Amino acid sequence: MDEQAKKLERFQKKLKKVRMLLMDVDGVLTDGSIILGTGDMELKCFNVQDGMGITLARYGGIKVGIITGRSSEAVTRRAEELHFDVLFQNARDKMDAYEEILSRYDLPDRQVCFIGDDIQDIAVMEKAGVSVAVANARQEVRDIADYTTKYSGGKGAVREVVEELLIAQGKWEKVLNQMGLTTR
Amino acid sequence: MDEQAKKLERFQKKLKKVRMLLMDVDGVLTDGSIILGTGDMELKCFNVQDGMGITLARYGGIKVGIITGRSSEAVTRRAEELHFDVLFQNARDKMDAYEEILSRYDLPDRQVCFIGDDIQDIAVMEKAGVSVAVANARQEVRDIADYTTKYSGGKGAVREVVEELLIAQGKWEKVLNQMGLTTR
Amino acid sequence: MDEQAKKLERFQKKLKKVRMLLMDVDGVLTDGSIILGTGDMELKCFNVQDGMGITLARYGGIKVGIITGRSSEAVTRRAEELHFDVLFQNARDKMDAYEEILSRYDLPDRQVCFIGDDIQDIAVMEKAGVSVAVANARQEVRDIADYTTKYSGGKGAVREVVEELLIAQGKWEKVLNQMGLTTR
Amino acid sequence: MDEQAKKLERFQKKLKKVRMLLMDVDGVLTDGSIILGTGDMELKCFNVQDGMGITLARYGGIKVGIITGRSSEAVTRRAEELHFDVLFQNARDKMDAYEEILSRYDLPDRQVCFIGDDIQDIAVMEKAGVSVAVANARQEVRDIADYTTKYSGGKGAVREVVEELLIAQGKWEKVLNQMGLTTR
Repeated sequence: MDEQAKKLERFQKKLKKVRMLLMDVDGVLTDGSIILGTGDMELKCFNVQDGMGITLARYGGIKVGIITGRSSEAVTRRAEELHFDVLFQNARDKMDAYEEILSRYDLPDRQVCFIGDDIQDIAVMEKAGVSVAVANARQEVRDIADYTTKYSGGKGAVREVVEELLIAQGKWEKVLNQMGLTTR
Repeated sequence: MDEQAKKLERFQKKLKKVRMLLMDVDGVLTDGSIILGTGDMELKCFNVQDGMGITLARYGGIKVGIITGRSSEAVTRRAEELHFDVLFQNARDKMDAYEEILSRYDLPDRQVCFIGDDIQDIAVMEKAGVSVAVANARQEVRDIADYTTKYSGGKGAVREVVEELLIAQGKWEKVLNQMGLTTR
Repeated sequence: MDEQAKKLERFQKKLKKVRMLLMDVDGVLTDGSIILGTGDMELKCFNVQDGMGITLARYGGIKVGIITGRSSEAVTRRAEELHFDVLFQNARDKMDAYEEILSRYDLPDRQVCFIGDDIQDIAVMEKAGVSVAVANARQEVRDIADYTTKYSGGKGAVREVVEELLIAQGKWEKVLNQMGLTTR
Repeated sequence: MDEQAKKLERFQKKLKKVRMLLMDVDGVLTDGSIILGTGDMELKCFNVQDGMGITLARYGGIKVGIITGRSSEAVTRRAEELHFDVLFQNARDKMDAYEEILSRYDLPDRQVCFIGDDIQDIAVMEKAGVSVAVANARQEVRDIADYTTKYSGGKGAVREVVEELLIAQGKWEKVLNQMGLTTR
């Protein structure tokens, strides 16, 4: 088995233990666009298939949370409509937020997966049990990640991670049935 | 004839019966972007060539309708300016909306084509006479569709379906003439 | 000389006579996105290099104008900031607008170039002396055009046409000098 | 050593002297989209990884500044949140702005790097010690630049330049440590 295949197998094995999925916003739930207008207008461009991914994760019993260094109403709205369990905005130090969340939910590192794209995510990615870099992540981030997504941030990266997670945990078909969705 | 060509031929044959074209919004009439701002601001990014496609369909005597799980003023405005016959927003269960529409217009399944992109569209796609997945649809959706578009959602996918439909029904040239448009 | 090269040469020869550049908006000065929000909010996404193209054309003594079937404040603003000579919005029949413009400026067809992307542009494109289809134009439009741009609408297509035009007329270097710009 | 490699080496050598990084906005800090709406609404679409690039540059002791021909609240907001040292909007003649900035900071040309995308940037690019064209720059601009980025404007071009700069100056690891960020 080549190195690539071994790495994927290790990733899938580590996913089995995951009970919480944490993620950055800009570059992960979006393509990294910071869209500013007049006054305090800030737009975020999320993705509908990622949204369904969050819903699938929640049906699968996975907690979902956001840790972001910025703050905007758009993120608050998106987090609310998708019923995220945790929302940390204005997180100057993502590690502080990360540790507060694990303590609040009494979760060990190995049960947490973090999805990031830039160097300020690296410390948390190295601490979390499973680390995922989006396709558009900086090289340094992809280098240390357990897995790099095929889809880019804001274009299905989060959905891809959720599917990998639910499949690794043997929950995929069950979740679809529970939601009244079936695939052949 | 190979499998691919046979599938296309079956699709074109089924299109001849179609009198109504139903579609999802996010990922189909848009590229799947959920664009949020401050307050209740939600933007949708539609496509001008898709818009002309809807107009062409209506000239060809095809009813057009939308079934979407979300709700926004942007969709209402677009549906109005393109004179969609049916607009179902906030459709928790798309099958309920689908069946209400067919009942209202007294149409059998075989006269309806549905265009979708994600797993919550699958049930309706399997019930409708003709099912189309957009290029950016999830793999499970493309797997069960009669046809997968070459263009992506929000980038001409709907226009492509309308042209396939009008050509299959032998109405393409007639519709262009009726609209005062001619191509060599 | 092959057919392609002959076609390009004919296009460049026809460009020498052009004194007015007319264009569609959606799909030509934009990538075809119709961006709607709450209330009457409609956004248009233009391109800065196209903007400089319009300025270059005007320095080269070329009149510039817009004929579009839609209407929005965004187009009015863009037309004003780039000092377009002509702005026709809500043009139900583009041919009417086209003929009114030629009559107003007392220009024969051969001195006008029109840039379009969809079938409703075809009639005007066949009447104008020179017709250009953007890279993202419908196949029928590309088929009848004298030239198809390498760049897509909203991504530099208009700039490309202006450069072709000024080079064909031997005005490129002169215009750059006049604007205080020089290239080696 | 081939011409390409020699050019890169010259670029990296020139970067060692740079103490200020100046840049255009549209096409450089954005992808060139001019997004207009109703009233005075103008949106700019910046990039989160470029933003981190500006922060990295500042930690590395590099002054950062903007010279743009347009003016918008969005640029003012972005410049403020990233703590740009210099912001020149409405710069009719970029050379005037450039010379005022160098005089204000008492910097010689060789200590300044300018990033541009269009012909109105060429004069400043030829005056500055180091000139960078973004991947999406006009051909004439790429022709005269010391370096052309691999990433496009608004998609990481500025981040790429900052990394090249800090690496050339031997500051990359130090800056990451200073920011409490480490890469393996």
